[in-house]
Amino acid sequence: MFEDQSQELTPISKLGEFGLIRHLTEHFPLSNETSELGIGDDAAVINPGNKRIVLSTDLLAEGVHFNLGYVPLKHLGYKAVIVNLSDIAAMNAVPTQILVSLAVSNRFPVEALEEIYDGIQAACKRYKVDLVGGDTTSSNSGLVMSITVVGIENEEGIVKRSGAKPNDLLVVTGDLGGAYMGLQILEREHAVFLANPDMQPEMEGYDYILERQLKPEARTDIKNILEELDIKPTSMIDISDGLASEILHISEQSGVGFRLYEEKIPMDSLTVSTADELNLNPVMTALSGGEDYELLFTISPNDFDKIKNHPDFTIIGHAVDKQEGNFMVARGSNQLVPLTAQGWDAFLNK
Amino acid sequence: MFEDQSQELTPISKLGEFGLIRHLTEHFPLSNETSELGIGDDAAVINPGNKRIVLSTDLLAEGVHFNLGYVPLKHLGYKAVIVNLSDIAAMNAVPTQILVSLAVSNRFPVEALEEIYDGIQAACKRYKVDLVGGDTTSSNSGLVMSITVVGIENEEGIVKRSGAKPNDLLVVTGDLGGAYMGLQILEREHAVFLANPDMQPEMEGYDYILERQLKPEARTDIKNILEELDIKPTSMIDISDGLASEILHISEQSGVGFRLYEEKIPMDSLTVSTADELNLNPVMTALSGGEDYELLFTISPNDFDKIKNHPDFTIIGHAVDKQEGNFMVARGSNQLVPLTAQGWDAFLNK
Repeated sequence: MFEDQSQELTPISKLGEFGLIRHLTEHFPLSNETSELGIGDDAAVINPGNKRIVLSTDLLAEGVHFNLGYVPLKHLGYKAVIVNLSDIAAMNAVPTQILVSLAVSNRFPVEALEEIYDGIQAACKRYKVDLVGGDTTSSNSGLVMSITVVGIENEEGIVKRSGAKPNDLLVVTGDLGGAYMGLQILEREHAVFLANPDMQPEMEGYDYILERQLKPEARTDIKNILEELDIKPTSMIDISDGLASEILHISEQSGVGFRLYEEKIPMDSLTVSTADELNLNPVMTALSGGEDYELLFTISPNDFDKIKNHPDFTIIGHAVDKQEGNFMVARGSNQLVPLTAQGWDAFLNK
Repeated sequence: MFEDQSQELTPISKLGEFGLIRHLTEHFPLSNETSELGIGDDAAVINPGNKRIVLSTDLLAEGVHFNLGYVPLKHLGYKAVIVNLSDIAAMNAVPTQILVSLAVSNRFPVEALEEIYDGIQAACKRYKVDLVGGDTTSSNSGLVMSITVVGIENEEGIVKRSGAKPNDLLVVTGDLGGAYMGLQILEREHAVFLANPDMQPEMEGYDYILERQLKPEARTDIKNILEELDIKPTSMIDISDGLASEILHISEQSGVGFRLYEEKIPMDSLTVSTADELNLNPVMTALSGGEDYELLFTISPNDFDKIKNHPDFTIIGHAVDKQEGNFMVARGSNQLVPLTAQGWDAFLNK
């Protein structure tokens, strides 16, 4: 769980709550002009100008969302931020500030928390986001992280899940299923390690899918690319729970159905070969695996020419009338397979 | 922990994550015109007009911040909101929205979460605050709640901790120490119950301090009272960790010292008599007890006449030059007792 085993470790109680927060956050300068007041008062102050504030929050629990047996703490901090930034990207807004709360048991030394905050800081720097608040407390059990993210956007720029219309094209960024396959490799090697701690994990050759799982990125770049193409999506969502589940969310909130073409689903060759190796259906990893943090959106069919050959996007289907339902058109046979939300569910997978 | 023992209980897995969020939040209508989009998309959307956004977050962990052995779930939900609203009141801003995240183990049935949300809803109604987002997930251990609160205020209305000047008067709302004494009674009776479950708890006559602990209120009323008096505080903080700790926060951030007069500290007679009963120093409960959620602020000495006889406020001291330090002037003797932050600390009290 904790990379540097050589140094002497500091118990959290040595710093106390206020000392700990100060220690962990002292290297987080404010860089956005919208951040008027950061950590240290009763609340942070943000100046959105005449724009809208977009707000989202996620809670990550040890043993449910991550396993410290194979997730490095720095990656955990990084990914916890990314998950939230992805929600803001899915509103077509620009993430600007985060608040980070941690509940940690006393088995964590200060140095472990420093590694988490190193990861948080790396994400803040890369995405130009300011840490402006949070809370740090002890817990009687494992580690729980709660992150709230603030984004800012013009009213007319915001894209909800509810604007898709029949005949709109369904588009996805990047490729899918990789994060789930990376998790399978991590869990396989962790099980081997637990059975025999002398065994070396076999991670070689899985780099891409391991990175998709351990160090995902948020597609905050898509907003600019779409603006340059002069496209405003009619609806948008990020892929945290799996493609099928997200399509059903847009379907429900927009009041349309969808046809998804199996052969169009973008997948990396390593995702496909690893799924084959583990006797998993590759398409199911894309449909239900989740954690890819790509963006799924709909655009007017009139925008087809603007996007059709763009390397960042794949058109994977289209919207239909609501009563026509949500189906995947199977490769080859053209058979209609009902789309169901078998995505990752924090309660069902327990 | 859970009041209604008679009905059949529903496992969380029956609803799943999305179903659970929808079920728990379906009776939370949006009532603030600044709430443009609530639960159900990737993020909430807030329109602050030309005002500033004020943001704060708190994390409450079972066994650290609350004991479900004697805290009813509805009260827990209510208090978790209040704790956050109090931070916004301490910025002299108006709380408008909250986001609520819960991590719960599967030992909690859906009905237990409904009780927590009943408490959250009662607080939302009373304080006219909208629930606009959150996250609900399972945990391998106890209950963890994370609440983020949004407030809105004109730039010139916001009061930070950093504006106190020498000779400013130090003022507090309400009375102090009650919440801590209520906690002592709850813990005493819980210990009696654990030793002998047939014993009836002796709670009679302690109503006021029990309410201070179990169902505190946020002083969102103070902003209007001060405006009517034409007073803008020079600094402000809420009393969550104890009077001494909060004075030291203002001291540090404003660069001043303070003289606190022991005889001026407002305490309810039940707080004093219960402290006597339990052989505790009543003044220490005010200085270090915490959780009173009253407001502590400084005002210009020119405002003395406006506030001197007001029933909501007590002038308890004044600011001095920084090098004169922070001291309590003892009752009778005029001896100077150094103020130290022995307030509640989530890590030290473990």
